[in-house]
Amino acid sequence: MAESWSFLDTLELDFRPLVVIELAKGTKGETIEWFTKRIVDKKANGGAQLLVKPLVTENGDENIYLVGASPLRLLLGAETVGLVKECDDNSMRTFTYSSRKTFKDFADDNHNFLTMAECQYIIKHELENLRAKDERMIPGYPQAKLYPGKSIVRRLLTTGILVQIFPLHDREELKKLRYSWYGRVKVGYQPLDEIRCYFGETIALYFGFLEYFTFALIPMAVIGIPYYVFAWEDYDKYVMFATFNLLWSTVILEVWKRICAIMTYRWGTLLMKRQFEEPRPGFHGVLGINPVTGREEPVYSSIKRQIRIYLVSLPFVCLCLYFSLYVMMIYFDLEQWALDYHEENESNFSSMMLFVPSIIYAVVIEIMNRIYRYAAEFLTSWENHRLESSYQNHLVLKVLVFNFLNCFASLFYIAFVLFDMKLLRQSLATLLITSQILNQFAESLLPYWLQKRHKKRMKKRMCSLKTDTDLSLVEQVNLEREMGTYFGTFDDYLELFLQFGYVSLFSCVYPLAAVFAVLNNITEIYSDALKMCRVYKRPFAEPTANIGVWQLAFETMSVISVVTNCVLIGMSPQVNALFPDSKMDLILTVALVEHLLLAIKFIMAFVIPDKPRDIQIKLAKLEFESLEALKQQVRATDTQNREK
Amino acid sequence: MAESWSFLDTLELDFRPLVVIELAKGTKGETIEWFTKRIVDKKANGGAQLLVKPLVTENGDENIYLVGASPLRLLLGAETVGLVKECDDNSMRTFTYSSRKTFKDFADDNHNFLTMAECQYIIKHELENLRAKDERMIPGYPQAKLYPGKSIVRRLLTTGILVQIFPLHDREELKKLRYSWYGRVKVGYQPLDEIRCYFGETIALYFGFLEYFTFALIPMAVIGIPYYVFAWEDYDKYVMFATFNLLWSTVILEVWKRICAIMTYRWGTLLMKRQFEEPRPGFHGVLGINPVTGREEPVYSSIKRQIRIYLVSLPFVCLCLYFSLYVMMIYFDLEQWALDYHEENESNFSSMMLFVPSIIYAVVIEIMNRIYRYAAEFLTSWENHRLESSYQNHLVLKVLVFNFLNCFASLFYIAFVLFDMKLLRQSLATLLITSQILNQFAESLLPYWLQKRHKKRMKKRMCSLKTDTDLSLVEQVNLEREMGTYFGTFDDYLELFLQFGYVSLFSCVYPLAAVFAVLNNITEIYSDALKMCRVYKRPFAEPTANIGVWQLAFETMSVISVVTNCVLIGMSPQVNALFPDSKMDLILTVALVEHLLLAIKFIMAFVIPDKPRDIQIKLAKLEFESLEALKQQVRATDTQNREK
Repeated sequence: MAESWSFLDTLELDFRPLVVIELAKGTKGETIEWFTKRIVDKKANGGAQLLVKPLVTENGDENIYLVGASPLRLLLGAETVGLVKECDDNSMRTFTYSSRKTFKDFADDNHNFLTMAECQYIIKHELENLRAKDERMIPGYPQAKLYPGKSIVRRLLTTGILVQIFPLHDREELKKLRYSWYGRVKVGYQPLDEIRCYFGETIALYFGFLEYFTFALIPMAVIGIPYYVFAWEDYDKYVMFATFNLLWSTVILEVWKRICAIMTYRWGTLLMKRQFEEPRPGFHGVLGINPVTGREEPVYSSIKRQIRIYLVSLPFVCLCLYFSLYVMMIYFDLEQWALDYHEENESNFSSMMLFVPSIIYAVVIEIMNRIYRYAAEFLTSWENHRLESSYQNHLVLKVLVFNFLNCFASLFYIAFVLFDMKLLRQSLATLLITSQILNQFAESLLPYWLQKRHKKRMKKRMCSLKTDTDLSLVEQVNLEREMGTYFGTFDDYLELFLQFGYVSLFSCVYPLAAVFAVLNNITEIYSDALKMCRVYKRPFAEPTANIGVWQLAFETMSVISVVTNCVLIGMSPQVNALFPDSKMDLILTVALVEHLLLAIKFIMAFVIPDKPRDIQIKLAKLEFESLEALKQQVRATDTQNREK
Repeated sequence: MAESWSFLDTLELDFRPLVVIELAKGTKGETIEWFTKRIVDKKANGGAQLLVKPLVTENGDENIYLVGASPLRLLLGAETVGLVKECDDNSMRTFTYSSRKTFKDFADDNHNFLTMAECQYIIKHELENLRAKDERMIPGYPQAKLYPGKSIVRRLLTTGILVQIFPLHDREELKKLRYSWYGRVKVGYQPLDEIRCYFGETIALYFGFLEYFTFALIPMAVIGIPYYVFAWEDYDKYVMFATFNLLWSTVILEVWKRICAIMTYRWGTLLMKRQFEEPRPGFHGVLGINPVTGREEPVYSSIKRQIRIYLVSLPFVCLCLYFSLYVMMIYFDLEQWALDYHEENESNFSSMMLFVPSIIYAVVIEIMNRIYRYAAEFLTSWENHRLESSYQNHLVLKVLVFNFLNCFASLFYIAFVLFDMKLLRQSLATLLITSQILNQFAESLLPYWLQKRHKKRMKKRMCSLKTDTDLSLVEQVNLEREMGTYFGTFDDYLELFLQFGYVSLFSCVYPLAAVFAVLNNITEIYSDALKMCRVYKRPFAEPTANIGVWQLAFETMSVISVVTNCVLIGMSPQVNALFPDSKMDLILTVALVEHLLLAIKFIMAFVIPDKPRDIQIKLAKLEFESLEALKQQVRATDTQNREK
C-alpha cells in the first residue's frame, strides 16, 4: 500500500489515526484508489496531502479508512483554517506557520500544541475542501457528476458512496475528561476548557450556557420558595418578585454575552475570521456562475425559493399552528370532562383523573413537537437554501414559533381567556414536570439502556475475534461507527428555551417553576455529559464565538414575559382590590408599568457593554496592531516608490 | 524660501494651494521655522512631506501659510487614509499606489483622480498625524509641552499658536455646484454626488437624508390634507391614517438604511476601514501608558469620568428637565390668563392674545434649547472623554433628552393630562410653525444679511489694495478666513429630529403637520445649501458610512409615536363611542393594538435587509476575494516551507 501514503513523511510510526472514513460496501476499486490518491496527493496537485491507512476488519468487505496527518501538515492546516492561539505574551493571535515560535507551548517536537479536536477539525476542513479539478464525474460512477471546484467529499456523501466521516475518540483523554466532568461527586464548575479541548467550542459553549443559566436561576428559585411555602400573595411582595424576575432575566442575558466573550476570547474563537461559506451539501440547482466567487456552481433562483417559503412553508406552518390550537381545544374538553366526572363521583380515582388530561396533553405536545420537527427539517431542506446558516435560521424560526405556541398556547388560553389562576398553576406545573421527565427519559435513561445493550453486543463480537495485532483500534472503530450521530446543540438549546418560557412567562403565578428548572438542569448537565461521552459518536469540533440566534430567542422571550407578567399581576385579586372603584385606573397603571419595565429593559441592554472592558482593550490592541502593521507596509511601499 | 519647499518636487508651478494654516500674530520665528520644516520634511525624518508657501498679505504681521502637496504625495496619502475608489471593472477597492493603474479614470497626468475634498482630507490627516519625536516642548514656547507621539497640530491648537486650519474653496467648482444645486429653479434631486465631491460624505449624506425625508413625508402630507380639509373624524378613516403613518415611518427609516448603503457604497465609504481613534484635542490627563497602543499619552481615570457623569452631569440634566417643566407650567398659567382675558373682553385683540402665550413659549423653548446646548457642550467637554466619538455620543444624548422634553412636554401634558384635543392641535400648530420660522430666520435670513455686510466690507478693503500679483488668492484667503465655522451637521439633524417628532407623535390629531414639514424642508434645502456655499468656511470632508446615532434616535422616536398615537386614538370621542358600555374593553383593545403594531414594527425592521441584494453581493465578492488572497498567501508559505 505504498502509494496510499503521503509523500511528505513515510514513517509508519508517525501515523496517528484521527478521522475515520467509511465507504459503502462494494465501492468500486477505481473509485477508492482515486479518492485515496486525492487525499494523499500534494497540495500543488490539488490533493489534501493527508495520510490514509485502510483498517483491516474481521470480514474484509468493509471499506474503512483511517485518516491522519503529519505534525507539519497539521500546523499548515491550522494556518489555513485561521486558528487563533495564545502567544508567549498572553495575547491571542491568528496562528501562522512562520510565526509559530512566538506561540505559547509551541515546540517542534510538541505534538500537543494543537488539541486533538483542532486536528480533527483541520482534517475535516481539508477533506471538505478537496475539490474536483477536471474530473466530470466520480471515477466508476458516471451518474455522480462533478464540475471544477465541486467538493468531492460532499458529492460522495450525496451519492451514498461515502457512508460517513467521523472523528475518533481518544480513550485516554476521554477517561480523564469523564472523570473530571461527571465521574466523581463534586460541587463546582464543569471543566469547560477541557470539554472545549475535547469536543470543540460549540459544545463547550452549550455546557457553559447550561451551567450559567442554572446558576442564574438559583436566585429566582431561592426567592420563589418562601413565596410558595408561605403563600405570600400580598400585593407588594408579589410585585417585587415579578419585577425582580423581569429585571433579573434581562441582566442574566446581558451578562451572558460578557461571560461568553471572556470564554471565547480565551478559546480564540472570538477573534477567528469567518470563513467564506460554501453551499450546503444538500443544495442543488442548474449549473451557473456564482456572482460572488465567479465560479461555476449550482445556482437556484432566489424567487423560486421565496415562492416555496411564502406559498408552501408559511401556509404549512400556519396549518400546523391551527392544528396545535385545535388539539388544545380538545384538551380543554377533556379537562372539562374530567372535572365533571370528579364532581359526579368524588372518589380518589376521580381526583387522580383530574391530572390525566394535563399529562396526556403534555405527552401529546412532546410528540407533536417531535413530528413537527421532522416536517420542518424536510420543508426547510426542500426550500433549498444555499448556505447552512440560512438553512439553520429558517429551521430555527419554524421550530421556535411552533414549539412556542404548542407549549404555551394552553397556558395563555387559561390565563387570559379563562382567567383561571388555579388551573393555570396546575397546568403549568404538570406541563413543566411532565416535559422534564420525558426529556430526561429520552436523554438519560434511554441512552443508558442503549449503551448497555451495545456493550453486550460488542463483547460477544470481541470473543469471535482472535488474531489481530491492532485489535483495540479495530474494536474501537467498529464500536464507534455504530454509535448514534449527535446532530448538534439545537434540541438542547430548544429545551432550555422552553424551560425559560415556563419559568419566566408566568413566574408570578408559579414561583416554584425556577426550583424545578434548577433541579432539572443539574441532572441535565450529567445526562448531557453522559450522552456526549458515551452514547454518541464524537462530533467534529465547530469553532463558534457565541450562541447565535438563541441569544435573540431568549431575549424575545424575556420581552414577552414582561407583558404576560404585568397582565397577570394586573388580573390578580390582590391588585384589583387596590383599585376598587375604577378598573380603568388599574389597567392604565398596569400599562404604564409595563411600558416602564420595557423601557428599563431596553436601556439596560443598551447600557451594559457586551464585552468586559479588558476584552475590549485586548481587541482594540489587536486592531491597533494590525492598523500599525498596515501603515508600516504602506510606509515601506512609500520608500520603495521614492527610491524608484 | 527654498527650504520651505518639499524635497520631492521643487517646481513652483505645480503648487496648488489646498489648505490654509493661520498662526497667531507675533508667533516666534523659531516656532514657525520648526513647524514649516516639520511639514515639508521627509516622511523618513518624521515629517509630513507636504508643500508650504507663505501668503504675503497687505500688512505683513499675519502668519498665513498655504499648504499643498505633489500629486504623488497625495496618491500615497490616499493609500494611508484608506480611500476606496472605483476600479475599471466597476468594483470598489481600497486604493493602493501599486495598483493605481487598475482604477477608473486614473492616469499619471490626471490630477482630478482625487477630488479636491479628498486631497484636503488627506492633507488634514497628514498634518494631524505629524507627531513629536524627541521634542519635549514647542520651540520658543517652553510651557507648551510635547511628548513622543503627541500630535503637534493639536498641541499648537490648544496653546493658541495655531489659530485655525481650513480648506480653501475652489471658486470655479463652487460656482458650478451652486448653479446645479440651487442656482436655477428646477424640480428634481440635489446633485448629491457633486456635493459629496465638494464637501465630503458627511455633508452629502445630510443633504441626502434631508431630501429623502422630505420625499418620504409627501405621502403623509398628501393623505393628511383631505383629513384636515373635510375634517374626517370617522373612526375607520382616523385609524387608517394613524396606522398608515406608523407603519410608513418604520418603512422609511428601514429603506433609508438601504439607500444610504447604496450611496455610501458608490462613494466608497461603506468599505472604508475605520481608522484607529486618537484622543480628542481637548482631552487631558497625567502622562501614562495607553493599554491599547502601549504609547505614552495622557491617561484619565475612567472612574473619575464616571463620577463626573453620574454625580454632576446627570443631576444637572435632571435639574434642567425640571426647570423646563416649571417653565411649561408658567406657560399654562399664561394660557389660562389669556383665556380668562378673552372671555372677559371678547374683542379681536383678546382673540389674538389667545395665540400669544404659545408664541412666547415657542420662542422661550428655542432660547432654552440654545442655552442648554452650550451647557451640555461645556459639561461633556468637562467630562474629559478620550475619544471624539464618545464625546459626541454623550453630547447627543444630553441634548436629545432635553430638547425632546422641552419641545414635547407641553404637548404631552395637554394630551394626556388635560385631555384637551383642541388645545393640543392649536399648540402643536403654533409650536411647529413658530420653531420653523425661527429656524429659517436663523439659518437663511440672518446669513443672507451677514453675507451682504461681509461683501460690502470686502469691497472697501479691495479698494485699498492695489499692488499684488496674486491678488485674487490673497483676497480669497482673507475673505474665507473671516467666515464663520460650520460646526458639523448636529444642529441640522436635531432640527429634523424634532420636526419628525411634531409630525409623528401626534400625527392623528394634526394631519397638516406633515404638510408644513414638507414645505419647511423644501426651503430648508435651499437655505442649508446657501449656508454651506456662501456663509461658512469650507469644512473639511469627513468620510462616513451612515448617519450614525441619528438612525437610532429617529427609530426611538417612531417607537414612542406608536404609543402616543394609540393612546390618542383610544381617547378620541369617535372611538369611545364604539365602546359605550365598557371603558375597560376600549383600553384593552387599544393596548392590544399597540402591542401588535410594535410587534409588526420590530418584525418589519428585522425582515427588511439593511443592504440591497446587489450591494450585499458586491460586499460578499470583496470579502471572498480577500479570503482567496489570504489563502494564496498561505499556499505560497506552504510551498516555501516545503521547499526548505
